[in-house]
Amino acid sequence: MAGNSFGKLFKLTTFGESHGVAIGGIIDGCPAGIHLDFEAIQNEMDRRKPGQSEIVTQRKEPDTVEFLSGVFEGKTTGTPIGFTIHNTNQKSKDYSHIKDVYRPSHADYTYEKKYGVRDYRGGGRSSARETACRVVAGAIAKQMMPDIKIQAFTSSVGNIALEKPYQELDFSKTESNVVRCPDPETAERMISRIKAIRKEGNTIGGTVTCVIQNVPIGLGEPVFDKLHAELGKAMLSINAVKGFEYGSGFEGAKMKGTEHNDLFNDDGSTKTNHSGGIQGGISNGMDIYFKVAFKPVATVIQKQDALDASGNIVEMQGKGRHDPCVVPRAIPIVEAMAALVLADYLLLRKQES
Amino acid sequence: MAGNSFGKLFKLTTFGESHGVAIGGIIDGCPAGIHLDFEAIQNEMDRRKPGQSEIVTQRKEPDTVEFLSGVFEGKTTGTPIGFTIHNTNQKSKDYSHIKDVYRPSHADYTYEKKYGVRDYRGGGRSSARETACRVVAGAIAKQMMPDIKIQAFTSSVGNIALEKPYQELDFSKTESNVVRCPDPETAERMISRIKAIRKEGNTIGGTVTCVIQNVPIGLGEPVFDKLHAELGKAMLSINAVKGFEYGSGFEGAKMKGTEHNDLFNDDGSTKTNHSGGIQGGISNGMDIYFKVAFKPVATVIQKQDALDASGNIVEMQGKGRHDPCVVPRAIPIVEAMAALVLADYLLLRKQES
Amino acid sequence: MAGNSFGKLFKLTTFGESHGVAIGGIIDGCPAGIHLDFEAIQNEMDRRKPGQSEIVTQRKEPDTVEFLSGVFEGKTTGTPIGFTIHNTNQKSKDYSHIKDVYRPSHADYTYEKKYGVRDYRGGGRSSARETACRVVAGAIAKQMMPDIKIQAFTSSVGNIALEKPYQELDFSKTESNVVRCPDPETAERMISRIKAIRKEGNTIGGTVTCVIQNVPIGLGEPVFDKLHAELGKAMLSINAVKGFEYGSGFEGAKMKGTEHNDLFNDDGSTKTNHSGGIQGGISNGMDIYFKVAFKPVATVIQKQDALDASGNIVEMQGKGRHDPCVVPRAIPIVEAMAALVLADYLLLRKQES
Amino acid sequence: MAGNSFGKLFKLTTFGESHGVAIGGIIDGCPAGIHLDFEAIQNEMDRRKPGQSEIVTQRKEPDTVEFLSGVFEGKTTGTPIGFTIHNTNQKSKDYSHIKDVYRPSHADYTYEKKYGVRDYRGGGRSSARETACRVVAGAIAKQMMPDIKIQAFTSSVGNIALEKPYQELDFSKTESNVVRCPDPETAERMISRIKAIRKEGNTIGGTVTCVIQNVPIGLGEPVFDKLHAELGKAMLSINAVKGFEYGSGFEGAKMKGTEHNDLFNDDGSTKTNHSGGIQGGISNGMDIYFKVAFKPVATVIQKQDALDASGNIVEMQGKGRHDPCVVPRAIPIVEAMAALVLADYLLLRKQES
Repeated sequence: MAGNSFGKLFKLTTFGESHGVAIGGIIDGCPAGIHLDFEAIQNEMDRRKPGQSEIVTQRKEPDTVEFLSGVFEGKTTGTPIGFTIHNTNQKSKDYSHIKDVYRPSHADYTYEKKYGVRDYRGGGRSSARETACRVVAGAIAKQMMPDIKIQAFTSSVGNIALEKPYQELDFSKTESNVVRCPDPETAERMISRIKAIRKEGNTIGGTVTCVIQNVPIGLGEPVFDKLHAELGKAMLSINAVKGFEYGSGFEGAKMKGTEHNDLFNDDGSTKTNHSGGIQGGISNGMDIYFKVAFKPVATVIQKQDALDASGNIVEMQGKGRHDPCVVPRAIPIVEAMAALVLADYLLLRKQES
Repeated sequence: MAGNSFGKLFKLTTFGESHGVAIGGIIDGCPAGIHLDFEAIQNEMDRRKPGQSEIVTQRKEPDTVEFLSGVFEGKTTGTPIGFTIHNTNQKSKDYSHIKDVYRPSHADYTYEKKYGVRDYRGGGRSSARETACRVVAGAIAKQMMPDIKIQAFTSSVGNIALEKPYQELDFSKTESNVVRCPDPETAERMISRIKAIRKEGNTIGGTVTCVIQNVPIGLGEPVFDKLHAELGKAMLSINAVKGFEYGSGFEGAKMKGTEHNDLFNDDGSTKTNHSGGIQGGISNGMDIYFKVAFKPVATVIQKQDALDASGNIVEMQGKGRHDPCVVPRAIPIVEAMAALVLADYLLLRKQES
Repeated sequence: MAGNSFGKLFKLTTFGESHGVAIGGIIDGCPAGIHLDFEAIQNEMDRRKPGQSEIVTQRKEPDTVEFLSGVFEGKTTGTPIGFTIHNTNQKSKDYSHIKDVYRPSHADYTYEKKYGVRDYRGGGRSSARETACRVVAGAIAKQMMPDIKIQAFTSSVGNIALEKPYQELDFSKTESNVVRCPDPETAERMISRIKAIRKEGNTIGGTVTCVIQNVPIGLGEPVFDKLHAELGKAMLSINAVKGFEYGSGFEGAKMKGTEHNDLFNDDGSTKTNHSGGIQGGISNGMDIYFKVAFKPVATVIQKQDALDASGNIVEMQGKGRHDPCVVPRAIPIVEAMAALVLADYLLLRKQES
Repeated sequence: MAGNSFGKLFKLTTFGESHGVAIGGIIDGCPAGIHLDFEAIQNEMDRRKPGQSEIVTQRKEPDTVEFLSGVFEGKTTGTPIGFTIHNTNQKSKDYSHIKDVYRPSHADYTYEKKYGVRDYRGGGRSSARETACRVVAGAIAKQMMPDIKIQAFTSSVGNIALEKPYQELDFSKTESNVVRCPDPETAERMISRIKAIRKEGNTIGGTVTCVIQNVPIGLGEPVFDKLHAELGKAMLSINAVKGFEYGSGFEGAKMKGTEHNDLFNDDGSTKTNHSGGIQGGISNGMDIYFKVAFKPVATVIQKQDALDASGNIVEMQGKGRHDPCVVPRAIPIVEAMAALVLADYLLLRKQES
């Protein structure tokens, strides 16, 4: 328990604080015999890392992964894969002012109350820095399932939303702009918005949509470990996430059965896909698609009231380097979590063969 | 694994199909010494059971729980509590026509593909009947935490939505009408809508909002077992659920940091509560509130095309007794799942004392 | 947690006290499509049940299993199998004298201290009655692996031990006598011993040896879930067990490497088998064999001092119906636990294909 | 799953191969607020490390632990503790001759069959090198329970056995000799034996006894996670272990009930302790004591037949640096595993308060 492991058969356990020596993890259960493409793994890391563009935090970390075990002569051995990522660019001085201060809408207060002790520097374990480890594991999980295509993209920033259904998007364009929106025109508007928000010293929320194609039929373990329930938990565990919906989502709650039902084609595929590729908690072969809502990051570079350890309200000026909008860097994290869930369920599915 | 257990320390494992001999479960980890109020448990069952009103399915089941162990002289012993609920009113003949037919947007197809064999009667294990077991366990979990108030209610049916914020609602009114909406005027409109939908032989979706008050600070296990992530998984595991959001939810994705941050009062409480009572995945003492989206039930009493086992599209007339809207009966299930999650996290929290 | 589940993929959860309404369990993860032989299951139950012969407890229970789910048209559906066994022959009055008394070397004292409340009748949850549920699940697990032969037998009672190596025994003789020893001459001596012990109102310990043949290579999950470690835990969880050894066991601790090493034949089998069929925690295809030590049952029908709840030493006369030696009835339990472990590891092994 | 984690609430996950870059682990669930004594941790490592004396392997590793997270200003934060130990003295050339050869009674054959790929150098993941990580975690666990005394010692080497009951031993003498036997005279004989065995190029087995004092009452989770069952699994997971017994162990199987029962004193303690401090799977406050049997290490420095990957029997000369007897270095590993089990159960026990 204690919340630092994800998965049952393909299991990731992580450690590490924002300003500690290093972060890292252990992947237990990766099948043997996979030729790892280390460049592809580092590429996923680069998609997530801070300092990558002008619309994210300016903390510069190379986020280079060092693998310590579980790989021999380029192939996974089936034994646990241990890895570390060293923190190189901590500016802990930026955080000395919050040593005894709880910033609003941060985890400072709850961590202190829960554990009685808190590494306040950079947010400690509550910082999104630990998501780098999820991306490493997700990148390896992806290599377990080369036929499955997992593609996430920014679907909204503040009030600017992609209106087109995903089928009309060209995913190859997602990486062509720093906000990772596959529609160039909407991407432009999003980037402008984020820059303006940054200038204000403020932050803004947004949503990520993810589409998964070529999923085999039969993944999911009813009644409690339904595929979409595990995907939901995976996404909700990412920092700043406030909501998850799949298929028709909250819109489906407004629909009638005759409108919502997906009728069959004779080969088992369906004419519509309000289900989002999952029926009764089990994948049915159609595209799985879901949306994740991110709140605006709590650290704003403006004056805000905070609470100190003695119970006084104190004025605090936000410091440190921060993301005005976390969504562009969340894309590879969302994909990584989806890959981790699928890896687990693919291995579970093998019991039924 | 295999998906039929929920929880780590307070753990529920269930069994049972819609038309099998019985459904039931085992609760492992309920602390010893609790005087069980069996009437309260049966009362929760009655809130969920079929045949309770004119706007739900007309299958009549008493849903009487029989406890087989784990209770001695009225108190829990700390040993596992086994219970069964016998099915009495199966009309299996109603399902003979789907023996080799996959109904659209039902789990027939995916269960067949996954397991290779399917109890088609009443939907077998995929039927919402198993949720009765969740309500038993949730009712017991509730008795573990008498100070915590878990209150769910119908917040929308189709396009009819409660507009008031929850703080303005009188929860004591929730049980005063069959749709379980605490605003009488909105309830009326919802009931009319459902009756009209039923007449059409159709179904409609809706949403449930749940408010949890008096939650102690410190519940939640970052980074993967964050409190809201586990709540999300719990709700998404309920039949027909398409979405989950907590606190500001999807609306929060449109907000700025300065608007969204909850500023502190000097006692640690917050002036606003966009967080939804959870920060960094850990409860902070403020109300936890979340919303769950339910799609329209797939079984419509109209003609629809279905797929048979030989790959032919066949016309099928919906039969059996069905809910035009599943939301009113989902209220006690949502509360039960919330109680199960809290029970687990309350026990985990004790390690830190 | 809370200790009432065994297994990860093929998982058994049980409930039930000696004098409660019923005992039972849920098997989650049994693959779909197995035609269950219910007679074979009941046959295993009959090998374990009380009242089966003159050298065991005289409590008469039919131990009839009722299956409530997970089976349709004779085949497992892959959904959880719920079952109950009703207690019919409780003589709770026999236990009223121990209501506030802790019997020596029983679990009365520790259960009271741990839980604060205790169902004292028949030993409550601490009674070996719950092992009936393990036998049900083990019987089903066995049907998942028809080629694997799991055969346990009594290898010693008190100081009377089988001297022959197992390869010289005819296992078909095990069920030919009430002490379940495949060597008729040794069996006779064991039976006489037990009858004499019973006349004394005393009890005696013994050992069970188990041989498993035709195990596929590759079962086991180093480094912590080694096959023999899980087998050891499984056996040690059975009431009255004090020790477990496999292969050369404690004798191996006295040997030299050149004596102990098993040299290979060219097909991968080995000339000797001190390993006991497991190397590095993984099965190697050779026979797995292990031995389990059972202490004498604590309930003796003689006067003994006990401790009461107020801290007084009180003289107590043993009552109730008891086993003078638990070993004959333990044979099917040992086989059942071995089957449960193998079922789990067989399913895990499938991930590697 | 996949076998590389131990524990539920206090959970250790490890990685690393004998000749890989590093070994290491993550401890998840260590309570916050413990001032770690790093010297004490390194001291435990030194008790385990290779090259420590003339009667163990001559591979020299400093086994220096580097902590990467989970500790702040000297105290545990309640967040995961990640650590690594770099391998410095691999002589991989010593192993090139076994690249395609399976050594008798080693895990070469089974690892190859299970995973299809094998890091053969130094035995890869199957090497006892990974036990260094267990000692790190066990050392931290010990610091969670300062009042509990866990003391292991060598009780036999080959046929040389300590005859005295443990109560007559002075544990402070255990570290006074390289074989870690608290009886100096027996220690001498053991050391001579091991030296002679080493000269022969052979290896010898032995046993370790462990005594745990001041254990609180109430630890253990019947019916499957009984304290002694988990201790047994923990010990059996250590390399080369063939058997586990606790309390009266296999001797108890020869005793009568009237001889074996532990009568009470009026304060709840017992006059004798055949139980070994555990009743019904739950600790009763008396000393817990158990014995672990170790087979002779399989690597002998003599010629032996081995099997190659093409199915030929080949003569092989043992190379590399090896332990003639693994028992002296196993003492800290046995203590570490005992501490890990107790840490887990101590945290679980808190739910009952």
